[in-house]
Amino acid sequence: MNKSIILHILGWILNFEAAFMVLPIIVAIIYGEKSGFSFLITIGICLIIGIPLSIKKPKSRVFYAKEGFISVALGWILLSIIGTIPLYISGQIPHFVDALFEIISGFTTTGSSILNDVEALDYCMLFWRSFTHWIGGMGVLVFILAILPLAKGESMHIMRAESPGPSVEKLVPRMKSSASLLYGIYIGMTILQILFLLVGKLPLFDAMTLTFGSAGTGGFGIKNDSIMSYSPYVQGVIAVFMFLYGINFNFYYLIILKKAKDALKIEEIKWYFISAVSAILLISLNTGGLKGFFSSIQHAAFQVSSIMTSTGFSSVDFNYWPTFSKTILVLLMFMGACAGSTGGGIKVSRIVILFKTIGKELSYLIHKRSIKVIKLNNKRLENETVRSVNVFFVVYMIIFASSLLIVSLDNFDFTTNFTAVLATLNNIGPGLEVVGPTGNFSSFSDISKIVFMFNMLAGRLEIFPMLLLFSPSVWKK
Amino acid sequence: MNKSIILHILGWILNFEAAFMVLPIIVAIIYGEKSGFSFLITIGICLIIGIPLSIKKPKSRVFYAKEGFISVALGWILLSIIGTIPLYISGQIPHFVDALFEIISGFTTTGSSILNDVEALDYCMLFWRSFTHWIGGMGVLVFILAILPLAKGESMHIMRAESPGPSVEKLVPRMKSSASLLYGIYIGMTILQILFLLVGKLPLFDAMTLTFGSAGTGGFGIKNDSIMSYSPYVQGVIAVFMFLYGINFNFYYLIILKKAKDALKIEEIKWYFISAVSAILLISLNTGGLKGFFSSIQHAAFQVSSIMTSTGFSSVDFNYWPTFSKTILVLLMFMGACAGSTGGGIKVSRIVILFKTIGKELSYLIHKRSIKVIKLNNKRLENETVRSVNVFFVVYMIIFASSLLIVSLDNFDFTTNFTAVLATLNNIGPGLEVVGPTGNFSSFSDISKIVFMFNMLAGRLEIFPMLLLFSPSVWKK
Repeated sequence: MNKSIILHILGWILNFEAAFMVLPIIVAIIYGEKSGFSFLITIGICLIIGIPLSIKKPKSRVFYAKEGFISVALGWILLSIIGTIPLYISGQIPHFVDALFEIISGFTTTGSSILNDVEALDYCMLFWRSFTHWIGGMGVLVFILAILPLAKGESMHIMRAESPGPSVEKLVPRMKSSASLLYGIYIGMTILQILFLLVGKLPLFDAMTLTFGSAGTGGFGIKNDSIMSYSPYVQGVIAVFMFLYGINFNFYYLIILKKAKDALKIEEIKWYFISAVSAILLISLNTGGLKGFFSSIQHAAFQVSSIMTSTGFSSVDFNYWPTFSKTILVLLMFMGACAGSTGGGIKVSRIVILFKTIGKELSYLIHKRSIKVIKLNNKRLENETVRSVNVFFVVYMIIFASSLLIVSLDNFDFTTNFTAVLATLNNIGPGLEVVGPTGNFSSFSDISKIVFMFNMLAGRLEIFPMLLLFSPSVWKK
Repeated sequence: MNKSIILHILGWILNFEAAFMVLPIIVAIIYGEKSGFSFLITIGICLIIGIPLSIKKPKSRVFYAKEGFISVALGWILLSIIGTIPLYISGQIPHFVDALFEIISGFTTTGSSILNDVEALDYCMLFWRSFTHWIGGMGVLVFILAILPLAKGESMHIMRAESPGPSVEKLVPRMKSSASLLYGIYIGMTILQILFLLVGKLPLFDAMTLTFGSAGTGGFGIKNDSIMSYSPYVQGVIAVFMFLYGINFNFYYLIILKKAKDALKIEEIKWYFISAVSAILLISLNTGGLKGFFSSIQHAAFQVSSIMTSTGFSSVDFNYWPTFSKTILVLLMFMGACAGSTGGGIKVSRIVILFKTIGKELSYLIHKRSIKVIKLNNKRLENETVRSVNVFFVVYMIIFASSLLIVSLDNFDFTTNFTAVLATLNNIGPGLEVVGPTGNFSSFSDISKIVFMFNMLAGRLEIFPMLLLFSPSVWKK
């Protein structure tokens, strides 16, 4: 393990976090909030540790997959702990575990909250909380990649570890220069959404924070009722943008490079659309009797877009929907958004690959000697990719089951526990019952909260970096 | 597809079913029940169709995996439909879907019931219902194998399709002669359990039916409160025997062949023990306050043995246990018993293999070129086995999710639906809430019941035979 280069990267992460914190300070100045000082103090801490680490040249530039995974895992943990300091020392969230939960939920773009009263927070805190969604959405290390002159091996391994989705798509267009382009698209869409929301007469503060929550597919609201009280226009804009952020960014990338033909070949986008449309139709029919059919379609579309992209904003309390509609939401939570998007979950492409392995196995069972090739986007899938997707699925389920068991010690009902684990591991935000759209995670014990924090990080980093962090063989000389 | 040989085998299944029905007729004679005539009529139907089919020599003896899977799938469906006739025409269960549900639940050793009042059934019906557990436990086609002179290829492919567990263990000791030996062990254990129960002063009828329910790991009771009202001695005998039937029968087989050393090498038995002991300890601690620690251990041990072997008898209504204990039961339901036992579920050996693939993947992620071999029982696992286990897991989850969705249309709560699907797909019997130990499946719609029936068959036959039955490529010339 090349520890010196990992420390070097962690140093840069601290410097960048200091830079990010300038924005909430501006907010604090505008609203005249004293709690803004806590950001100043945190910036000081970041720079005192960060500058020496980042200036020091690493002894060796050896950088393999192992270093990539560990930098990403440690980087995200460090980012979260430092990001928690302002909330904690300002006394806005006085219990450290709660504050850490909130910020990990922010960076991992989960959107689960322990706050009973969001509106009691200062503006600068609300801003920082939502801004962590935006930072976490595209990946902070990818951001650093886009700016710092790192070697090719370093970029590749960091990309692999931090980008969502099976590795099949990761390597194709994602090197240093493409990191800048991806961030360009991300920033462009963010600005566009803010403008659309301003047209809807939303205050700039609301427009920015809600956009951060959509862009990162995070879902932190700044009101206690999420976004239920906003106008249908605002809800509509958010629904459309959430859906767009949930699409594989390679799609936009290829469109910009004028390779529309290649863009349309991305198979998972087709299934992403089909799933969304079917879910909206089924939920509309199922909830149609509740408040009229038009209103049903509107809320169904919003909720489907919010849940399948793993954002978690709510326009309605779906705790009161019939079980069929709730079950559709639960299944969408498992599936999640496209690989290479800012969304969470297992990812549409992984589900597509898993389905394809079944066809292969059935034909193998009938004619032993048949060697059926699995294709995705018209390309042959490597065995390694298929195997990795399978193992991902297995580890995912084991983490799910273990979390469910530990969390059940708090003695909430099974549905609450099940959806709470699902909502954190897939970076959704709300679940059902106690953790439903109008509920929150505050009543869980600290042990459960720590489990949820691990799940949020494991979900965002797609499990393996977090597992390797605890694997002794990684740390052996 | 060699249809003539499949018809030949189906003919034999009918003849055997006719023979099995002699026993409930004897029961009907003893208790003077008129409903016994319905068995006579059914025997007539069996023989009229069965004898011509079985006498006719098949045109060709070509028999591949395809024929094996299809004989088994069709065989089980036929067995169930014919087995339903007595319940239906006697008017004891007047709704056909309900009667079919009950008998499929019997043959697949599930033990889920649609009966609100079990005690209202005639003795001969109760006997038949429990006897289907015993028949289904070891596999009816394996039974036929043990008796009929079939070719080697036929035995092998039928064994592969009907025996539970990943194919790794299936082929080792399981040819024609071993089929007889396995049935010998099964019959021996059955007689032993009946004797033990008679010592506990149980009437012969109760001793036999409860033993059938344990041996097949089925779980149909003959009282409305399952076995809650029996003495601790009787409950203890049942608990121990359920646990023994859940062990891989290769273990007993090897012991009889005096290969104790090989028997102890079966890795999954170790994990089966470890899981049982840990679950009993955790549940005892968690429920300890309820009725005193000794009683807690007793009920915990019974329930763990009952659930992990997928039997489903209950000595207590665990609906009232704390969520932690209920969650342990739910996880045990997923896991199930050993491969090659009469128990259901995903199977301990599959879970062990899945865990081992994770270690392999992690080491692959760190050092690309490492080729780590996965071993089970000190033997190298073939890639095909690992892949097949992975695909099994994926198909299992997809069937689970689809069933959950359809069943949720009945608008029961999420926990009821989730555990109802789990209880049927894993051949357990009871779930939680509405389908808990004192509840039943009667209030579900016919559509849901059909889904549950499919799940029970898919669970017992380990999915692939049922999937291939609906796969067009199997039926192509």
